[in-house]
Amino acid sequence: MDPLTIDKKRLRHRATSLLQRDAQIVEPYLHDLTVSRYPAAPQKLLEAMDYSLMAGGKRLRPALVLECCKACSGGDVDASDDQPPPRSALAAAGALELIHTFSLVHDDLPAMDDDDLRRGRPTNHKVFGEAMAILAGDAMVTAAFELIAADAEPAHVPALIRELASAAGPIGMIGGQVRDMESERRALSLDELASLHAMKTGALLTCACRMGAIAADADATKLAAVSAFGRHLGLAFQIVDDLLDLTATPEQLGKQTRKDADRGKNTYPALLGIEGSRMKADEQLDAALAALDPLGSGAENLRILARFVVERDH
Amino acid sequence: MDPLTIDKKRLRHRATSLLQRDAQIVEPYLHDLTVSRYPAAPQKLLEAMDYSLMAGGKRLRPALVLECCKACSGGDVDASDDQPPPRSALAAAGALELIHTFSLVHDDLPAMDDDDLRRGRPTNHKVFGEAMAILAGDAMVTAAFELIAADAEPAHVPALIRELASAAGPIGMIGGQVRDMESERRALSLDELASLHAMKTGALLTCACRMGAIAADADATKLAAVSAFGRHLGLAFQIVDDLLDLTATPEQLGKQTRKDADRGKNTYPALLGIEGSRMKADEQLDAALAALDPLGSGAENLRILARFVVERDH
Repeated sequence: MDPLTIDKKRLRHRATSLLQRDAQIVEPYLHDLTVSRYPAAPQKLLEAMDYSLMAGGKRLRPALVLECCKACSGGDVDASDDQPPPRSALAAAGALELIHTFSLVHDDLPAMDDDDLRRGRPTNHKVFGEAMAILAGDAMVTAAFELIAADAEPAHVPALIRELASAAGPIGMIGGQVRDMESERRALSLDELASLHAMKTGALLTCACRMGAIAADADATKLAAVSAFGRHLGLAFQIVDDLLDLTATPEQLGKQTRKDADRGKNTYPALLGIEGSRMKADEQLDAALAALDPLGSGAENLRILARFVVERDH
Repeated sequence: MDPLTIDKKRLRHRATSLLQRDAQIVEPYLHDLTVSRYPAAPQKLLEAMDYSLMAGGKRLRPALVLECCKACSGGDVDASDDQPPPRSALAAAGALELIHTFSLVHDDLPAMDDDDLRRGRPTNHKVFGEAMAILAGDAMVTAAFELIAADAEPAHVPALIRELASAAGPIGMIGGQVRDMESERRALSLDELASLHAMKTGALLTCACRMGAIAADADATKLAAVSAFGRHLGLAFQIVDDLLDLTATPEQLGKQTRKDADRGKNTYPALLGIEGSRMKADEQLDAALAALDPLGSGAENLRILARFVVERDH
């Protein structure tokens, strides 16, 4: 194998180990939510929530919270890898995955994208029915804010809730979903597309980074560094998502592919071509990595994650 | 007119003045949310949110927040009637109305109750489409938590968010909605029905009272008093709701009536008869009023509201 291939394999191995380790922290916390936090809740509702929360996925957003928290805490990152995360970081990581999962459940609904398959399994409403899928999504949102209010350091709660609510709401993810709906069958400019994606996926990824920094009581310089990192990473992530929809197989992604073109969605490949989109993603990756400079060697895990996100093939 | 009729008219006048005054505080605050808090949000999303938020209604829940806050603050209630509310109370009142309105928008969806009419106007999805109604409801939830985190006293934020999220979520309103769906076409016992309603409507009314007390830094005695008040009032409110569905006209309620029987829903009149339900509502009203004793004359507005809720005819 040539050196580049060896380097890529090593990167993938380090990134997946890192994501797995963080997932092993967040998943029991999320599972506990549905098995023990609401003993008086209807069993079916908890099942519907758990079905989508435990469906796997890369758990990239919670990993960004935990790793940004470490990167902003100073000290020895390798040592902190073996420590349990601060309570504010864990609560924020869980809350973010709840918000992300809620958005998938509602986006898959018949009235929205009408998808049957998600992460290789039938979508929530296919299993539990439409009404329950709507309510399970709703309950994930309230649970997200409850986790932060109950489990984070009280002094961090107002800032964490503002970040999450703002990134999820009308000027963030939900607003981006509306813009996306409005722009189907209408050609967007590159700037409009970038702005749509900054809302639809970028806001939540940037929020992950910022919540990690807040949980670490980061100063303004560090907070600005991870914010810029999140913003560029978010755009790179979306461009790669657009590319994979075009080039990957349904088996690789665990969901239907080539949906974007069928639905007349605006994508980077449609505007810039496959090669142009690749270059744009690499450019955003470089900007994301440059943003981490103020954090020095403490941000090594974030660099691994960012490179992995842009070079992934599923 | 006999004395009882005069007394009833006077009560109605005092209660509606009180509700109007509180609505005039909360409505501009909610309207401002959609016109100025999210300048970068898609216009259509804000319109859909505003359409349902500004549809009127009694604004009972925000009034309970504001009046419980006054009742727990001590001092001269008549004087405090002319003061702007403390920022935590205003934020909680707005947040609660957002959560209440979100629940109406989602409950009306075709996959849920499939209603065409609400407060005398077409339901949200009839005007804006199903996808937008789902997203507008979602955005009201994130906005509710954002209001509290941004506008309440930071020291109150964790407790207020926990109250609201818990009352809205799997062991509260959303859980109650699931129980309600599960129990259609199945006969519930009186205890099961009371428990369903305690979740579906009682939790949010109790939450209103508790958030008002928290905003007033109430001690444990006062918090317990308004909690019991809210619990009994919530049950009385629901019994009267069941009765009105059976006895009022669509014009009086601004929505379809006699839906419960058509859908095989469990109601108090079905279990106890009309007279029995009336007695049960009065019994709960008495318990609600008794719970206010520790608050003395400061709770007079709450007594007016409670009596009005049980004696209303729409």
